[in-house]
Amino acid sequence: MSQYDVLCIGNAIVDIIAQADDAFLVENGIIKAAMNLIDADRANLLYERMGPAIEASGGSAGNTAAGIASFGGRAAYFGKVARDQLGEIYAHDIRAQGVAFDTLPLEGPPPTARSMIFVTPDGERSMNTYLGACVELGPEDVEEDKARGALVTYFEGYLWDPPRAKEAIRLTARLAHEAGREVSMTLSDSFCVDRYRDEFLDLMRSGTVDIVFANSHEIKALYQTSSFETALEAIRKDCKLAAVTRSEKGSVIVRGDETIMIEPLAIDELVDTTGAGDLYAAGFLYGYTAGFDLKRCGDLGSLAAGLVIQQIGPRPRQNLREEAVKAGLL
Amino acid sequence: MSQYDVLCIGNAIVDIIAQADDAFLVENGIIKAAMNLIDADRANLLYERMGPAIEASGGSAGNTAAGIASFGGRAAYFGKVARDQLGEIYAHDIRAQGVAFDTLPLEGPPPTARSMIFVTPDGERSMNTYLGACVELGPEDVEEDKARGALVTYFEGYLWDPPRAKEAIRLTARLAHEAGREVSMTLSDSFCVDRYRDEFLDLMRSGTVDIVFANSHEIKALYQTSSFETALEAIRKDCKLAAVTRSEKGSVIVRGDETIMIEPLAIDELVDTTGAGDLYAAGFLYGYTAGFDLKRCGDLGSLAAGLVIQQIGPRPRQNLREEAVKAGLL
Repeated sequence: MSQYDVLCIGNAIVDIIAQADDAFLVENGIIKAAMNLIDADRANLLYERMGPAIEASGGSAGNTAAGIASFGGRAAYFGKVARDQLGEIYAHDIRAQGVAFDTLPLEGPPPTARSMIFVTPDGERSMNTYLGACVELGPEDVEEDKARGALVTYFEGYLWDPPRAKEAIRLTARLAHEAGREVSMTLSDSFCVDRYRDEFLDLMRSGTVDIVFANSHEIKALYQTSSFETALEAIRKDCKLAAVTRSEKGSVIVRGDETIMIEPLAIDELVDTTGAGDLYAAGFLYGYTAGFDLKRCGDLGSLAAGLVIQQIGPRPRQNLREEAVKAGLL
Repeated sequence: MSQYDVLCIGNAIVDIIAQADDAFLVENGIIKAAMNLIDADRANLLYERMGPAIEASGGSAGNTAAGIASFGGRAAYFGKVARDQLGEIYAHDIRAQGVAFDTLPLEGPPPTARSMIFVTPDGERSMNTYLGACVELGPEDVEEDKARGALVTYFEGYLWDPPRAKEAIRLTARLAHEAGREVSMTLSDSFCVDRYRDEFLDLMRSGTVDIVFANSHEIKALYQTSSFETALEAIRKDCKLAAVTRSEKGSVIVRGDETIMIEPLAIDELVDTTGAGDLYAAGFLYGYTAGFDLKRCGDLGSLAAGLVIQQIGPRPRQNLREEAVKAGLL
């Protein structure tokens, strides 16, 4: 009997979201559509230059956990906040969504992580992340019962940035596999892939990771090719199952010889792409752990991603279970 | 020469905003559409019961100051936050909007104020405010140059809840009037009017306040009548100028014998009424200090209020100057 459908592990980050134009990104040396890692000094500098903002709990795998819970799935989360106001907000939001979250907060500095997200008029988000307390996540934060008790463990490639989170991942993956569970990851960001290409490939080829989520930029970065087809064929061989998102073209799921094309959700207005990939993974993993076929898993992913990009912030306001029922997917 | 168009004084509050249904309000004894004052214990209890939320800087007069700055007006603000993360967020947001904000933050407890706002499906907001550091605002926070240098000073009736803010108001009003400026207030909330009816009437009748903003519920509470007409005639006599909002019916401005009816903005969807009155006052005071006629002041108020209620949170994302130009009001 499984305790959870999905255990998500990631950098626990509060998003600080403001609008900006493209010139602002250029003037401030922010790589558009990417996750830019920043230190405390640059965080202060950018915040001084940032317009009025709103705050929302984020973090890639945290968004996925929240999405799975919103679909009605049983989700757990490992992530490190500090014992401060932003940490309280983070813990509140993920627990209020129904996610089991028991990682001990860090006492003393650094503070809870925050990401300053600039949303340009085209809806694209450019993130500037100060990792704060996330740098303290380590194997001591792995709760064995959750690692063994979740049908699928899902983690962010971003976790290769803090120093010891990868140890937590390797431990969790070992416990999960011992219990007969599956392990999945997202490649997170094409610059992140550039930083950790060999390690990510090793995670896949060694069988530490069974299922990979990525977008087209990330798999092209992983295989250092400009050809999506080449990258897709390569990832097909390197893991058991991959789901690759392609923005407005939908997504492609590959498993062995199978290839399944998934349509995107038709949307009214693209407002803010933050959380699109995270919510795709949420829909997919909710469906996957419910035992649905891959087409339906992908459609659930498209639904959740399509909803979150029509609003500001990384987690949909809607109840995703209700939305899936309305869409005929549940 | 004036230094500022409008000096706003209020409780500096971070809003914590979530959706809830009417049953939640009933079960938790929350008076709908009102500002419910709560203590720290009840704040903790309600936060435990609250769903996932987002955070945004709020506070009635703070929203007005932000709105005036967004129109291109010169705004200043007095309000007390603590030296903590929510206080930093508050100070950032209002300064990033271009408002002069120099009130010293409170060292040590209590923390920055927060208001848990539950937005029901009808778009109505029900607020639950823990005043925190706001209780320390006092006459020592009055910056004389700003009190004397603003064309209009505007404050919240809500400031009668913390113990010493009223002393700050009386001092500011004296300085402003000595400098030949005008003083305005909002009645804030009908329950607030019930708590401080005699003092509010005295502020008006003694000439401490020249201009009053209110909604129809608040003026009826002020004069303890169920007749809007009766209340409007009474307030006409008690202050030099009053602007009374009536939700979807627009607003009425009275000055001596003059009566000016203002249409509301036509809206697509009512999402969240938070900030409606604050932004009406912002548009009105921006126009008033620019020397526009009262009709145009009211139309600017309708524009700003109509924009803010079509989105979540108390301050419009749009640049109000651009919106006013588009609407032919500037």
